[in-house]
Amino acid sequence: MDTDEQLQLTPENLAVRTLGELTVPSPLDGGLLERGESVHYVGEHDRVLVDGTLGVAARRGVPVDELPTFEPGGPRRSLYFDPKKTKVGIVTCGGLCPGLNNVIRGLVGELAEHYGVHSVLGFRDGYLGLTPDGDEPLDLTPESVRWINQQGGTVLGTSRGGQDPKVMVETLRLRQIDILFVIGGDGSLRGAQAIADEATRQGLAIAVVGVPKTIDNDIPWIDRSFGFQTAFGRAAESIRAAATEARSHRGGVGLVKLMGRHSGFIAAYATLASDDVDLVLIPEVPMPLDGDRGVLAHVQRVLDEQGHAVIVVAEGYGQDMFAGVEGGADASGNAKLFDIGKKLRDELSSHLNASGVPFQLRYVDPGYAIRSVPANSHDSVYCTRLAQAAVHAAMAGRTATVAGRWHGRFVNLPIPLVTRTRNQVDPRGDLWLSVLEATGQPVHV
Amino acid sequence: MDTDEQLQLTPENLAVRTLGELTVPSPLDGGLLERGESVHYVGEHDRVLVDGTLGVAARRGVPVDELPTFEPGGPRRSLYFDPKKTKVGIVTCGGLCPGLNNVIRGLVGELAEHYGVHSVLGFRDGYLGLTPDGDEPLDLTPESVRWINQQGGTVLGTSRGGQDPKVMVETLRLRQIDILFVIGGDGSLRGAQAIADEATRQGLAIAVVGVPKTIDNDIPWIDRSFGFQTAFGRAAESIRAAATEARSHRGGVGLVKLMGRHSGFIAAYATLASDDVDLVLIPEVPMPLDGDRGVLAHVQRVLDEQGHAVIVVAEGYGQDMFAGVEGGADASGNAKLFDIGKKLRDELSSHLNASGVPFQLRYVDPGYAIRSVPANSHDSVYCTRLAQAAVHAAMAGRTATVAGRWHGRFVNLPIPLVTRTRNQVDPRGDLWLSVLEATGQPVHV
Amino acid sequence: MDTDEQLQLTPENLAVRTLGELTVPSPLDGGLLERGESVHYVGEHDRVLVDGTLGVAARRGVPVDELPTFEPGGPRRSLYFDPKKTKVGIVTCGGLCPGLNNVIRGLVGELAEHYGVHSVLGFRDGYLGLTPDGDEPLDLTPESVRWINQQGGTVLGTSRGGQDPKVMVETLRLRQIDILFVIGGDGSLRGAQAIADEATRQGLAIAVVGVPKTIDNDIPWIDRSFGFQTAFGRAAESIRAAATEARSHRGGVGLVKLMGRHSGFIAAYATLASDDVDLVLIPEVPMPLDGDRGVLAHVQRVLDEQGHAVIVVAEGYGQDMFAGVEGGADASGNAKLFDIGKKLRDELSSHLNASGVPFQLRYVDPGYAIRSVPANSHDSVYCTRLAQAAVHAAMAGRTATVAGRWHGRFVNLPIPLVTRTRNQVDPRGDLWLSVLEATGQPVHV
Amino acid sequence: MDTDEQLQLTPENLAVRTLGELTVPSPLDGGLLERGESVHYVGEHDRVLVDGTLGVAARRGVPVDELPTFEPGGPRRSLYFDPKKTKVGIVTCGGLCPGLNNVIRGLVGELAEHYGVHSVLGFRDGYLGLTPDGDEPLDLTPESVRWINQQGGTVLGTSRGGQDPKVMVETLRLRQIDILFVIGGDGSLRGAQAIADEATRQGLAIAVVGVPKTIDNDIPWIDRSFGFQTAFGRAAESIRAAATEARSHRGGVGLVKLMGRHSGFIAAYATLASDDVDLVLIPEVPMPLDGDRGVLAHVQRVLDEQGHAVIVVAEGYGQDMFAGVEGGADASGNAKLFDIGKKLRDELSSHLNASGVPFQLRYVDPGYAIRSVPANSHDSVYCTRLAQAAVHAAMAGRTATVAGRWHGRFVNLPIPLVTRTRNQVDPRGDLWLSVLEATGQPVHV
Repeated sequence: MDTDEQLQLTPENLAVRTLGELTVPSPLDGGLLERGESVHYVGEHDRVLVDGTLGVAARRGVPVDELPTFEPGGPRRSLYFDPKKTKVGIVTCGGLCPGLNNVIRGLVGELAEHYGVHSVLGFRDGYLGLTPDGDEPLDLTPESVRWINQQGGTVLGTSRGGQDPKVMVETLRLRQIDILFVIGGDGSLRGAQAIADEATRQGLAIAVVGVPKTIDNDIPWIDRSFGFQTAFGRAAESIRAAATEARSHRGGVGLVKLMGRHSGFIAAYATLASDDVDLVLIPEVPMPLDGDRGVLAHVQRVLDEQGHAVIVVAEGYGQDMFAGVEGGADASGNAKLFDIGKKLRDELSSHLNASGVPFQLRYVDPGYAIRSVPANSHDSVYCTRLAQAAVHAAMAGRTATVAGRWHGRFVNLPIPLVTRTRNQVDPRGDLWLSVLEATGQPVHV
Repeated sequence: MDTDEQLQLTPENLAVRTLGELTVPSPLDGGLLERGESVHYVGEHDRVLVDGTLGVAARRGVPVDELPTFEPGGPRRSLYFDPKKTKVGIVTCGGLCPGLNNVIRGLVGELAEHYGVHSVLGFRDGYLGLTPDGDEPLDLTPESVRWINQQGGTVLGTSRGGQDPKVMVETLRLRQIDILFVIGGDGSLRGAQAIADEATRQGLAIAVVGVPKTIDNDIPWIDRSFGFQTAFGRAAESIRAAATEARSHRGGVGLVKLMGRHSGFIAAYATLASDDVDLVLIPEVPMPLDGDRGVLAHVQRVLDEQGHAVIVVAEGYGQDMFAGVEGGADASGNAKLFDIGKKLRDELSSHLNASGVPFQLRYVDPGYAIRSVPANSHDSVYCTRLAQAAVHAAMAGRTATVAGRWHGRFVNLPIPLVTRTRNQVDPRGDLWLSVLEATGQPVHV
Repeated sequence: MDTDEQLQLTPENLAVRTLGELTVPSPLDGGLLERGESVHYVGEHDRVLVDGTLGVAARRGVPVDELPTFEPGGPRRSLYFDPKKTKVGIVTCGGLCPGLNNVIRGLVGELAEHYGVHSVLGFRDGYLGLTPDGDEPLDLTPESVRWINQQGGTVLGTSRGGQDPKVMVETLRLRQIDILFVIGGDGSLRGAQAIADEATRQGLAIAVVGVPKTIDNDIPWIDRSFGFQTAFGRAAESIRAAATEARSHRGGVGLVKLMGRHSGFIAAYATLASDDVDLVLIPEVPMPLDGDRGVLAHVQRVLDEQGHAVIVVAEGYGQDMFAGVEGGADASGNAKLFDIGKKLRDELSSHLNASGVPFQLRYVDPGYAIRSVPANSHDSVYCTRLAQAAVHAAMAGRTATVAGRWHGRFVNLPIPLVTRTRNQVDPRGDLWLSVLEATGQPVHV
Repeated sequence: MDTDEQLQLTPENLAVRTLGELTVPSPLDGGLLERGESVHYVGEHDRVLVDGTLGVAARRGVPVDELPTFEPGGPRRSLYFDPKKTKVGIVTCGGLCPGLNNVIRGLVGELAEHYGVHSVLGFRDGYLGLTPDGDEPLDLTPESVRWINQQGGTVLGTSRGGQDPKVMVETLRLRQIDILFVIGGDGSLRGAQAIADEATRQGLAIAVVGVPKTIDNDIPWIDRSFGFQTAFGRAAESIRAAATEARSHRGGVGLVKLMGRHSGFIAAYATLASDDVDLVLIPEVPMPLDGDRGVLAHVQRVLDEQGHAVIVVAEGYGQDMFAGVEGGADASGNAKLFDIGKKLRDELSSHLNASGVPFQLRYVDPGYAIRSVPANSHDSVYCTRLAQAAVHAAMAGRTATVAGRWHGRFVNLPIPLVTRTRNQVDPRGDLWLSVLEATGQPVHV
């Protein structure tokens, strides 16, 4: 945690917005759990410490209750919404990520079986489904979502890009939605914030609760985003394919491009999981192409020594090389990345050709293959529990809030906190050190 | 964390034993990392907070530096052992667990490539290999362990049961071993402690560092034990097989016995991952067989309602039913468990027969199938990093210590702390609440 | 092919029963295939040679048209049933086998999309569903079966055991079923024959077409039964688990029991696929326990030489050892097998104990795990195509017939031909020779 | 089988070349099989019928012994080579294919354990390893190849392109190689033929035996090439990924490019296995882009009806569209294919843009991912048995021969027979009919 991050952790920035007083007794008492004492209800004063590491002498002597803390997630003894009357909407936004269907299924199951909420609409094709141009939403029931987790993708459909908050709130108003769950990334969560703000402006008591989705694991204050383990496991398979090709050919060079616009977590973890990589390039570590400690020289050295080489590059690495080249933005407003994979392929080919080293370069871009697989066992469990936490937050009237997990505890986080910064690989931290040890590549910070 | 646990967290109990002063500069500076500032060396005063949750009013006002803390793991600027002269032994003990070969490979790789330690012996067949009855140990090199992670089990072999610490220390002395890594469970870690104590008694500067292994995830103060995710993922497959059989037969009842002598984590997580279970029975939750809220009545109710039922039972559940029956102990000194799976099968059959409900019961005991699979991607990464942390601890002269991970940080834990209590499913905590919501079974605490 | 088999291959025994003349033009011409010439319709005189091997001098000089031949499967230009009016039933019988849902889905898809038959009922729980005790059948549509192939088991349910043909025909008559597809093993196919006979006796033009199901691959005149590849692939995983346990323990012995009442195909193929087995025992090869070339001596020898041993036993091996022990029969009328796995475990333990060899025996019985997995890619394709062949046969009025595949061609086989004998591993053939070479076990014939 | 194929099936074209008389008794008699009668030795007069289908009236009356036949594979009672003195070489050529390591391992195992041949060299990097430029060959032993089957690729390395037969024979002569196994495709098999011819010319008794490798399954007279099942299973996963993306997006179009230069088998089987495809395009079926029954109109129609579309294209489809464009050839002399995948992507985009249909096209090119996976269970067994058959052929002095499998029997085929034509999907046959039924695409022949 650096100083900038510390500065954000004011009580104001950590506070979760709530629609109003909690006056409805939870059906938990009379339902699933017959005896009130049998469940760990979250108390209104429970808090989770933001930072569990004490390394700074300056912090000594600070009273514990002045340390920054998050609101814990979980069921509460009293609710804001009356389950019998509550209408819920769900929407999935942005690119695919393993586990989307699990989260949808987890939300529907938790609402129906735990709280007794049976009116759940699935809006189609991302925020488009919250506009008049959208297709008719789906009725979601525990039966209709029974097996959807066995498939990748999202049964609701998805799209990139935002829509006018006023138009979307109007849709929610007309359909009498009390709670909207938004499963999406940072752009979509900013959209969720805008919906929550517009609803508040209009005096509508609509809870907007996000389930943060990022295959890149780059949303801050969250241990690991859902689908991330599945994704890097699948990415490791692609690396193994490239490594098999490289090892089977004299001078074989395998070059694998993975996701990671701003954060190299998938590249780093997939590298550790496959343990067959000689160089990994991520946005956080600006290793140059040229020079003795640069990319080209390192690859040539590895080829000389072991006869083949495997390189992993995250798509966001080295975007500065394209300075001056005209770019663009996608429908979500993300700047379009230049294709570093192909550039690297061309640069490597030129360099190795020029140096007279015989080589055979294979370029692998697994792309959609990683995004579209079903969640593995870990992510299945995590999605279910994250969905439960999101439902607990929503039923307690939290809004403009996301459900997250921090140091092993479910927490409620205000949306601005998780969209303001990014989670990135620390080039001086222990994850990157593990990677450096595994690849043996030159150190750059 | 209950009161008993709190009482243990004295500074004395949390302190890690060290062989002596750290006087050897780490080869990291001149080697992998050319510039000293580029790595997060662990400072001698860094600490990791034991408890990140602040729920108890009484704790308010306590100065942070009086809170219980662990020693962080990671590389240090100065070492106790001189890598050029260090001889290392590795031993794997107890039952198989996914990831054993990954840990062996990780230790060898980290020793050789990071620290330049090239003399590593693999003792055979658990502690037996540290006695004159053992087979000749294997020389372990990065090349010889290159692919072992692709296979389950342990290339060193393993065995249950302890050996005389004096005999084992004599073996270490004769082979001039400086560091012994013990990959094993609580019994084996107590053995490691005894070796460390005996070495100290004889004035031998041998570091004994454990990598805690428990497929049941029941070692305390560790987020998740290595191999656990792989294990419950495989267990979920067995549940799905049983559920498929149950759903394909009129009155189909699938009964799956899983590991879990004292802790029901595998049963709980596999249940959540398969999401196809109507009842899960674990040691921590004493649900009776009889009575309206008992096991038999619940199964009959589920059969009536949906025509089939799936039950998961952890092997340690309901051992009190066997009170008065003569038992025994295995070679590791663990009390032998009575076979609850078969008892449950028989009780269910009797009950359903007596009640005239037509049923077809299938009993599934995946047993070794779960222990012997190779580690999945997550566990592969985790084993590698845990091995790196164990090497860092050993090179810094830590002994009678295990490498663990707490709230996402690698930590060094004294062996007695992790063998004194057990990690168990909290019947009032959020994990079990998630399970109850997924199965719909009656609540018992 | 031995002499007994040859004798059966009379033109009478090879002839397929047909309900009547083919007078309805296939909708293929005007539908899927716009131009009549574009499809290989099966001609009424096309035949498939039974035996493609010419090893016997005596056969020289025989005119080709006197050799035994099968009727080829496939679409015909004219049909017996008018698709617009045809009502179809499907039933699955006996134990689970990978691919059941794929066959159901393939039948429904082919009927609807190719022929335009939209009235398809799925009878529940095997032949029980064809009696008044059965549950109401399911309406099967391309939509309702869209994803069922992703799951193992059968969505229709299944049961063992027969029912009175008169009662079943009465059900078909009341529901006006024209075609009944029976997916089942030899007992169930005999039941199908009885239904066809009873229908004929009553003058009802009901086509009864079987899709032969046998996880043991023991139905004769069929290259490979559906689900077999999936099954032995899964069985090979169980062998690998046992082998991992065996190799990780001093004196480790892994003993794996697989299916195979009368035929050792799964044991043989899984052995070849895992390539980690020292001895495989199948019903066709009567290897004794005792003696220098017996089971016990061989295992001891392997243990001595390599320190561990892996044994695979098919459930039907060595049933003669139980001579004189009282037995029984299951609901399908199959004689109950004695548990050779446990007997072998006990005999091995006694023998090794007596001989003073230290050993650790693990007994693995994967059982239902193999039956309940979804079909792999090969079996998925094969089930779809087999279902198409069955539909073609039925629409052309074939009855008391099964759809099979012989030497790479789909064929129509009369039920008595495939239920009269069994497909078995030839102890002198090339498959068993491959196994002997892979295991190095003593030869017995 | 068309007329051209029939004309080739003269006794001369089907005859296998043999180095000389078989005078060495097989070690089988005294070794693995103690009793001579216990194995099905192949008799010198045994033959396998080429065609098991009798559809042509003209063939009636032909005596059986005038029908074309193949030589069966398998062990013979007498050998040409004396195992005690035999030296063997193995080389893998051309692109990767699942199962290469299994074949290498099978050859080494069969030679050593069955025949007692212990001198086996693995030449490196394809035919390059048979020239002075090649790296030193590897000594191959049962131990050194014990686990190689768990990895994809080839441990020997591979390369495309031929080398001078004289140079290669000189290498064989210097190293005193008696038998050379060539695992390779049609180009490499022509190279093997050239080596065999050159050896004969020089009077060297070197047996050159091929194991035909083609991921496209396009080598004729072979039921299915090794690795093909693994390959189409992996290809089906890529289709599922594309289909998941397509279904999750409004107007989603998934376009998957698969291998298949001249034959669309992978595309056809992967389509059937994934059962999620609306159009598949293969080299054998010249469907035009334009027109009402063309590609573009069909995709638009599917998009209109179901909102998304999935298209599979084999790389060899539609090469005629590039008429007049300058091309090239790769190192093996294969004409370079134009990139039909990208052309189709561009044509589809233009067409759909022009027609105003909103769409989102994802282009998936799994490429190396399919070639580099380890063999599945079926292919593992098949590779082992194919290797055994190749060893039997070589030990019996067969040369310029490949080991194949025809209608379920192992056979020896002369190399010219399998390199003269190609195995292709018959647009009027039952496989393509199954595909048409599964996709519902317009029929073109």
